[in-house]
Amino acid sequence: MPLTLEQLNQADPASALALLDGLYEHSPWIAAAALAERPFRSLEHLKHSMAQVLAAASPQAKLELIRAHPELAGKAMVARSLTAESTNEQNRAGLTQCSLEEFTRIQQLNADYNARFGFPFILAVRGPRGQGLRKQEIIDTFARRLQHHPDFEREEALRNIHRIAEIRLNDKFGAEPVLGNDVWDWQEALAEYSDPGFAEKGQLTVTYLTDAHRACAERIAGWMRDCGFDEVGIDAVGNVVGRYHPSSADGRYLLTGSHYDTVRNGGKYDGRLGIVVPMACVRALHRQGRRLPIGIEVVAFSEEEGQRYKATFLASSALIGAFKAEWLEQKDADGITMRAAMLHAGLNPDDIPALRRDPAHYLGFVEVHIEQGPVLTELDLPLGVVTSINGGVRYLCEMTGMASHAGTTPMNRRRDAAVGVAELALYAEQRAARDGDSVATIGQLQVPNGSINVVPGRCLFSLDMRAPTDAQRDALVADILAEMESIAARRGLRSSCERAMAVAAAPSDPGLQQHWERAVEALGLPVFRMPSGAGHDAMKLHEIMPQAMLFVRGLNGGISHNPLESTTANDMQLAVDAFTHVLEQLSQEAP
Amino acid sequence: MPLTLEQLNQADPASALALLDGLYEHSPWIAAAALAERPFRSLEHLKHSMAQVLAAASPQAKLELIRAHPELAGKAMVARSLTAESTNEQNRAGLTQCSLEEFTRIQQLNADYNARFGFPFILAVRGPRGQGLRKQEIIDTFARRLQHHPDFEREEALRNIHRIAEIRLNDKFGAEPVLGNDVWDWQEALAEYSDPGFAEKGQLTVTYLTDAHRACAERIAGWMRDCGFDEVGIDAVGNVVGRYHPSSADGRYLLTGSHYDTVRNGGKYDGRLGIVVPMACVRALHRQGRRLPIGIEVVAFSEEEGQRYKATFLASSALIGAFKAEWLEQKDADGITMRAAMLHAGLNPDDIPALRRDPAHYLGFVEVHIEQGPVLTELDLPLGVVTSINGGVRYLCEMTGMASHAGTTPMNRRRDAAVGVAELALYAEQRAARDGDSVATIGQLQVPNGSINVVPGRCLFSLDMRAPTDAQRDALVADILAEMESIAARRGLRSSCERAMAVAAAPSDPGLQQHWERAVEALGLPVFRMPSGAGHDAMKLHEIMPQAMLFVRGLNGGISHNPLESTTANDMQLAVDAFTHVLEQLSQEAP
Repeated sequence: MPLTLEQLNQADPASALALLDGLYEHSPWIAAAALAERPFRSLEHLKHSMAQVLAAASPQAKLELIRAHPELAGKAMVARSLTAESTNEQNRAGLTQCSLEEFTRIQQLNADYNARFGFPFILAVRGPRGQGLRKQEIIDTFARRLQHHPDFEREEALRNIHRIAEIRLNDKFGAEPVLGNDVWDWQEALAEYSDPGFAEKGQLTVTYLTDAHRACAERIAGWMRDCGFDEVGIDAVGNVVGRYHPSSADGRYLLTGSHYDTVRNGGKYDGRLGIVVPMACVRALHRQGRRLPIGIEVVAFSEEEGQRYKATFLASSALIGAFKAEWLEQKDADGITMRAAMLHAGLNPDDIPALRRDPAHYLGFVEVHIEQGPVLTELDLPLGVVTSINGGVRYLCEMTGMASHAGTTPMNRRRDAAVGVAELALYAEQRAARDGDSVATIGQLQVPNGSINVVPGRCLFSLDMRAPTDAQRDALVADILAEMESIAARRGLRSSCERAMAVAAAPSDPGLQQHWERAVEALGLPVFRMPSGAGHDAMKLHEIMPQAMLFVRGLNGGISHNPLESTTANDMQLAVDAFTHVLEQLSQEAP
Repeated sequence: MPLTLEQLNQADPASALALLDGLYEHSPWIAAAALAERPFRSLEHLKHSMAQVLAAASPQAKLELIRAHPELAGKAMVARSLTAESTNEQNRAGLTQCSLEEFTRIQQLNADYNARFGFPFILAVRGPRGQGLRKQEIIDTFARRLQHHPDFEREEALRNIHRIAEIRLNDKFGAEPVLGNDVWDWQEALAEYSDPGFAEKGQLTVTYLTDAHRACAERIAGWMRDCGFDEVGIDAVGNVVGRYHPSSADGRYLLTGSHYDTVRNGGKYDGRLGIVVPMACVRALHRQGRRLPIGIEVVAFSEEEGQRYKATFLASSALIGAFKAEWLEQKDADGITMRAAMLHAGLNPDDIPALRRDPAHYLGFVEVHIEQGPVLTELDLPLGVVTSINGGVRYLCEMTGMASHAGTTPMNRRRDAAVGVAELALYAEQRAARDGDSVATIGQLQVPNGSINVVPGRCLFSLDMRAPTDAQRDALVADILAEMESIAARRGLRSSCERAMAVAAAPSDPGLQQHWERAVEALGLPVFRMPSGAGHDAMKLHEIMPQAMLFVRGLNGGISHNPLESTTANDMQLAVDAFTHVLEQLSQEAP
């Protein structure tokens, strides 16, 4: 019989501690301290309390917790002295069944890892439904993490320990995240489609209107029908649109969704999570035979990443009437125009203007998206409420000085272009940090044809600056560009820059944002508000209706646009639960 | 009848000013102020006084001086309203005889230049013996200087004005630098030889033991014989060695010389100046039928630049017994070993060990070299006395952080490798500047595969650090490398670096350095002491005997390893005069 939260909340301290035995390897003190927070409102609440206990612990206590874990396929496994939980986990991952080569490789990795970090490698090897990682994935992850900075890797070990505790907790409470698992499976299934040249390498790439892209659309449309959407169709730009009708014909709709195209060699969750989460909600309503006073319109946007054609956000642009006819003449790398690609896919470009939505029919737009950053994972929080999609601007810049002999040019007679850029980089860093939620990045940096013994005469670099409001962004940009000129003047350099892009900020609608906040609260989690540094489809919809987004924690440091992008079925379950809660709130408010 | 210095020194102020009329275009105030310094010990003294007057003048006065000059082939020339001096100069440069294309091009350059800088383009168009620059050279220089930073170009205009004044002064005083012109001519003649692939493009490249290189050696040997050296030969590593005997058989020798090989697409003066200056001195002695109590041994070193084979300084290494036998097996880009190249040139590698000099037979080694840096030209000084050849060390480094999304990674959660390097660059700059005469350079800098919207996860860079003593250099290096680690630790980065080269410092011998100082003083010039940032053959000889170097000002900002490397016949004359003075001093001290 699985445990219940009620049992845990009502047990005396010693019994409660016994109920939580084995969550954190050989370290009952974490559960013991967290139990002071009882009564727990949810398992999330319990998990968060334990994470807080560990976050507040001393570095030494954290290190001892990490060291309390066995090596993967290590001596303890061989000597059969593992905890029952570890034995179970290593067994499921196939680690008890290694070839001699695999075993030797793992032993070498164990030795290298321990030598480098001073603690054993820890990886949550069980995935959804306990299927877990394959041996080769484990070995690859092991080799990759060996390269991390020790500080980062210590945190990564602790995050894996929390994940292991979460899985063990799921087992104790029979709390398998059922909808989260379904959401996981849909994304796995979509990830089977990939463009030629990438599919062969096992890489995920789905760009606008390729065969893989069209297969994704068909697959999503099929799932929507299975989920019980009343209308499902593929529109003139390739969006898959599913509508679940309101209880009365004049009910307004909540518009939601995200994109199903990907960057080259991207992750499985970027965009797609925001399609499948509301699908899971609609399926649940349909299974219950429930109609809400509000309608739900889920759009799987066909294009957001700007990979095949220069036009990014073309799919959401179509919904706000901002699709530009001249985009149709853009050519891809093979010289195929967008128009030709559309016609080949059976889409009629003439129908695009009719895609424009009338805001009067909608409550607004909400979008669930993986964070694509490290904030939530570093704070041990599964969900974040977005306050604004940052406005951004990009420049391509050049600093020009005078190339001269590195040995014979005294420091006070140099016109070193690279040091000028270095000074700007540090200024940009502290200027953005001063705002708290602005960012400024020099992502491209190069001394062209630099020689070891020549003072750099030129330095090329990029500047990417973003902030939650346009005013804040403009102030940031003005300060950084002014500093660039002042550095150049002071150092006898010349600076030039060309604006490559500018996007306005999209602050969240206070009402919709509050719905997300209430939903998070209802799950027993603290509300964490954050801006979105990346652009999203919601940014386009913002131009014609209120919008607000919810972020879901990404693993591996929040890495994105990378095959390592990941999240958990537990976190995806929470997204489904939060979305459901927002639907309930909106329904209660409906006339 | 040319003027004499005595006339100038004895004239009343008004007459003296009249004697100097026309030196600085429409600006008699410069000569007027300089005349307060009378009596002048030399024309150099007068020129330096005028340069000091201008250096101390207000920016506005400098600008007015520049603006007092006519445009090249400009309206004034067309209207025949130029000063007599300017008419003469523009006439000699052929500017009064332009094709329509040339005229149009120059007018466009005049307009662009004036628009950019607010003053006319000024170039000393007359070279040695009044032959001067060709029209195409003038146009090329014009186009190049249009790209300069305004501060730098203003100084460049003033330097050209000083040079014009110097040429006008030569005319007034009948003070054509005769030996300087010969030294100029020898270097012009040597510059006719260039390696295949470069000769065709008019570029100067002479690498070890190529046909051009061997022709240079033969040519130098021929000149040495013409100059009256008693013994002339080409040794086993290709050095051309000329000996001018002392008056008695037991007299010790002054060893001197520099290298005749060049970098690819190099300048005409780097190395070669140090061969032809002492040649001019020996020729003068021979013409006078004079023997000194000391002998003079001039070595034209065959190799210093390390262009064809990795072994640099192989020629001077042979003289100190440090030629390594394994170098003979090094291969050039075509797979030809050094041994094979030597045998092909008729050199016998077996004779190399015998090239080692016995220090007991020598007073020491002196070397004249073009500065290869901006110090002398910026100070309006033709000569500089070297205090030490800096010790140097080079590292190839990498900073590793974590690549992440530029939009979604808050400033305080970044591990930005490039900003870490930026911080180091600024530290290195101020740390080297603190010493006064140390230098530190990041010449190579690159974020590999950087993207505009990705926080740099890696940054590759080089470090070149030099100082006049090994202790000073080691302290510099230790501080910079410690800062690199501390930055990395603070920012959660990893730094690594690999030492690519290390060379010990070679402080000048105090006695020999003082001989150079007295010689400079005797010319009526202020003594300016400076370290050598670049390596030189003297660095090798330093290992077995005392050494000291003299630097000659380079034009065009002191640019080096570049076809724009240049100096003047006047400055080369001063080097010959200084060298002669050192010979006289050493002779007086000889037993």
